[in-house]
Amino acid sequence: MTTRRAFLNAMGRAGGYSAVYLSMQAMGLLATPVIGATRVVDLPAGSGAGRSVAILGAGIAGLVAAYELGKAGYKVTVLEARGRVGGRVWSIRGGDRIEQIGREDQLCTFDNGFYFNAGAARLPTAHTAILGYAREFDVPIEVMVNVNRAARLDFGGRSITERQAVNDTKGRFAELIAKALDQGALDAQVTQADREKLRVYLRQWGALDAKGAYRGSDRSGFRDNPGGYANPGVPMDPLTLDQIIADGFWGGGLTFEETFDQQAPMFQPVGGMDRIAYAIYARVKDDVRLNTPVKAVRPTGHGVRILLEDGGAVEADYCLCTLPATMVKKLDIPLSPAKKAALANTVYAPSAKVAWEAPRFWEQEGIYGGLAFTDAPSQLIWYPSGGWNAPRGILIGAYAAGALGNATSFSSMPHDQRLQVSRAVIERMHPGKSALLAKGVTVAWNETPWSEGITARWTPEQRKTDYAELCRPEDRIFFAGEHLSYIGAWQEGAALSAHEAMTLLHTRMVADRMTGKRLA
Amino acid sequence: MTTRRAFLNAMGRAGGYSAVYLSMQAMGLLATPVIGATRVVDLPAGSGAGRSVAILGAGIAGLVAAYELGKAGYKVTVLEARGRVGGRVWSIRGGDRIEQIGREDQLCTFDNGFYFNAGAARLPTAHTAILGYAREFDVPIEVMVNVNRAARLDFGGRSITERQAVNDTKGRFAELIAKALDQGALDAQVTQADREKLRVYLRQWGALDAKGAYRGSDRSGFRDNPGGYANPGVPMDPLTLDQIIADGFWGGGLTFEETFDQQAPMFQPVGGMDRIAYAIYARVKDDVRLNTPVKAVRPTGHGVRILLEDGGAVEADYCLCTLPATMVKKLDIPLSPAKKAALANTVYAPSAKVAWEAPRFWEQEGIYGGLAFTDAPSQLIWYPSGGWNAPRGILIGAYAAGALGNATSFSSMPHDQRLQVSRAVIERMHPGKSALLAKGVTVAWNETPWSEGITARWTPEQRKTDYAELCRPEDRIFFAGEHLSYIGAWQEGAALSAHEAMTLLHTRMVADRMTGKRLA
Repeated sequence: MTTRRAFLNAMGRAGGYSAVYLSMQAMGLLATPVIGATRVVDLPAGSGAGRSVAILGAGIAGLVAAYELGKAGYKVTVLEARGRVGGRVWSIRGGDRIEQIGREDQLCTFDNGFYFNAGAARLPTAHTAILGYAREFDVPIEVMVNVNRAARLDFGGRSITERQAVNDTKGRFAELIAKALDQGALDAQVTQADREKLRVYLRQWGALDAKGAYRGSDRSGFRDNPGGYANPGVPMDPLTLDQIIADGFWGGGLTFEETFDQQAPMFQPVGGMDRIAYAIYARVKDDVRLNTPVKAVRPTGHGVRILLEDGGAVEADYCLCTLPATMVKKLDIPLSPAKKAALANTVYAPSAKVAWEAPRFWEQEGIYGGLAFTDAPSQLIWYPSGGWNAPRGILIGAYAAGALGNATSFSSMPHDQRLQVSRAVIERMHPGKSALLAKGVTVAWNETPWSEGITARWTPEQRKTDYAELCRPEDRIFFAGEHLSYIGAWQEGAALSAHEAMTLLHTRMVADRMTGKRLA
Repeated sequence: MTTRRAFLNAMGRAGGYSAVYLSMQAMGLLATPVIGATRVVDLPAGSGAGRSVAILGAGIAGLVAAYELGKAGYKVTVLEARGRVGGRVWSIRGGDRIEQIGREDQLCTFDNGFYFNAGAARLPTAHTAILGYAREFDVPIEVMVNVNRAARLDFGGRSITERQAVNDTKGRFAELIAKALDQGALDAQVTQADREKLRVYLRQWGALDAKGAYRGSDRSGFRDNPGGYANPGVPMDPLTLDQIIADGFWGGGLTFEETFDQQAPMFQPVGGMDRIAYAIYARVKDDVRLNTPVKAVRPTGHGVRILLEDGGAVEADYCLCTLPATMVKKLDIPLSPAKKAALANTVYAPSAKVAWEAPRFWEQEGIYGGLAFTDAPSQLIWYPSGGWNAPRGILIGAYAAGALGNATSFSSMPHDQRLQVSRAVIERMHPGKSALLAKGVTVAWNETPWSEGITARWTPEQRKTDYAELCRPEDRIFFAGEHLSYIGAWQEGAALSAHEAMTLLHTRMVADRMTGKRLA
């Protein structure tokens, strides 16, 4: 990056703005900007030279940009429509009002100290940018249990433990390979020398017996756990291959936990996911205007003028728009036909959660954190991580998101029905306990003002067309947000897209300065 | 249990001691005691009727027994050879002296607040008895990360991430099944109707392409992680089946994490594993005599007399011996020939750890907790859970235990050599970082006074003979300890064996009382 910047500086000195611009284009900075993915932007202190940037949106992308650009000597103004920062990082607490488009408001009545992460709720350790901000700002983190072998899978009308689903599947699959080896069906794939080693591996990996058969395993749990003296434990009967194939539970935990961004261990800030957003906010607070919806963006030839709903206006040399595409679509902003077409093609996914306050009956049953999966429309139960063994806690009773199936049916239900579906699934997994669920609230992101969707659903083809177009700046207007990343729906994607946008903006600013272009 | 006790009471009233004794024998209480494995003992308050019990050993079994028997109205005296409670639950802190038989003492110089769990270090959620004590005594717990997909496996001279090992193995195995299906080799195992469903499952589970081939997956991680804008991430080349078979890493994390007692999530007390032992100790402190080695046990006809090394003696109606078999062997105690033979046949496993204090370089590399595995004799690196993002922490640099291979070679090394082996493995996994390791200490349980081994290694045959014999009381002497359970080497096994022993002891006491037998 430094080399590239030094090169552009030299070009600017030698040939003026057009040379710099052509170089940027040649280097792909205008067409398809390429900056190292996980490298945090590192603009030298003072390099912003007092130039001004209007940032639209105080979600993670906007906050990160405000912090980094401010550090580099830019003058930033963040315009946020909501009365809070964080965007789709939304931790709802007792006393908070939940507004949903076309629905009645809900008032959250949770006890003091409780929160419900309606949006972002996990920090994978591979997300080094957002974890880096948590570390830089001393945000305390704790493990977010994403895998619990004691939690249940409720599929095809049958409820089994995850440990049984996972380990009986491994056992049956290992058995199939052993049978195929017996028949010589894999002689082309496995050399004779390797076959015996593979058999040893399969016996370990799948808990097979000496003959290559799977007869169940204590990995799948016990009907009655082992104990002292004469209690070896009573084993479970293993699932048959037929049952495994019929139940369809692989749609649940079995593949989910190995998704790159979902792998153990996961973390969360202590006290609510919004603690990171608020830690960044604390550093840029004076530059953030809450409750300030933007009405229009007007290029002025030498900068941008942002017109506000309240009648005011903000002038700046550059604009960084971090709004979701759903909101950019609705904004009065002059964009190229290509950008408008790309925006029109951009489809956002729905996503809805339900949260309850309840006594922690799940911990009494030995379930400490983690996810239970169901083929009912509520898709998930998500047990709280932290507050272990406390009397009460917040249970996520539904999380219908695209990753696990079609989220539309759940999102379109009346609120009462969402709560009912959630309650019924919890009752199936925890008989007699659903009566303890209280203070239920529900949030759907497609119905949440200023978001209207959880994340853009990009097809591989769209990545080359619409996505690439939305990454491109429009003169002095730059774009960022999780939808402009390959880590969609994650804070990391928002942060890294902001890093890309800032690098682009800074390069443009350096070019403008070198060519003596008049600024706002 | 209540029914059984009520029945025995009735028998006592009707037919005196011999009837009760015969009933107990018939019910298997003397021969092969059977009490519900995970049910916590629940002796009614006052039912101990002031009878006295001398408990040998203040490990988990002894402490649990002291607490439960005391609650029930027994008078207990716990005799502990060491200056601390907990036994093989040993959290070593700065200032602690580490004594090892035949070795020079080590002085631990860790910074204030740090600890090294030289023995027990995990709480599985299936261990409801020990977790129940943690809850009852308000011992704060936190997640102990036992699985980390970012940690590395160092096998056959190659170091790869666990996520790659796990997911490329799944991919290659799924591919083998798909190939066998293609050839009709599994037609006998899978009905035609199920074959297409199985193919769908395999594609999901193993990340196969539409043709059933494994071409790698982002589940295995990236060479360069995805980011914003034009950064889709650079995928890893998948391991070939040959590599997977050759490397032998299944001996490490791949099967370990699915062991019943090792499954996610796992917990630990905040501040050191000994917090549970000390929480129980706080309730029975007045009845525990530390630094009081036992020299001999003498039945008196109406009770037991315990002779102490310091020349003193303790008289009690009953004795509960919770010492490991290694120590019972050395005790001057009159036992039946059957018991002596069983003790002689009991073999304890070695187990050794190394701990370092260091700056948390592993977290800078994105590794937060979890285990890295190696085929070197040190077997493990165990990253600390908790204190996330603090400047320094305690890294377990070796854990050579029977579960992962032969622990004898590591245990028999000179201390310096253990530290060297550990340092070399850490250097391979974290190049340039081993120089940061400081204050190394090492503990081997076979060389630890009053333990001389970590756990009994029972063969399935021995469970029927030697193990069953060691569970049997000898008149008024009862036995407990993790070795008398099917949860060997775990605190849960110690607690549940103590529950079994107490139930037996209590039944005997009730019988003695009913038959008017003279007590001590």
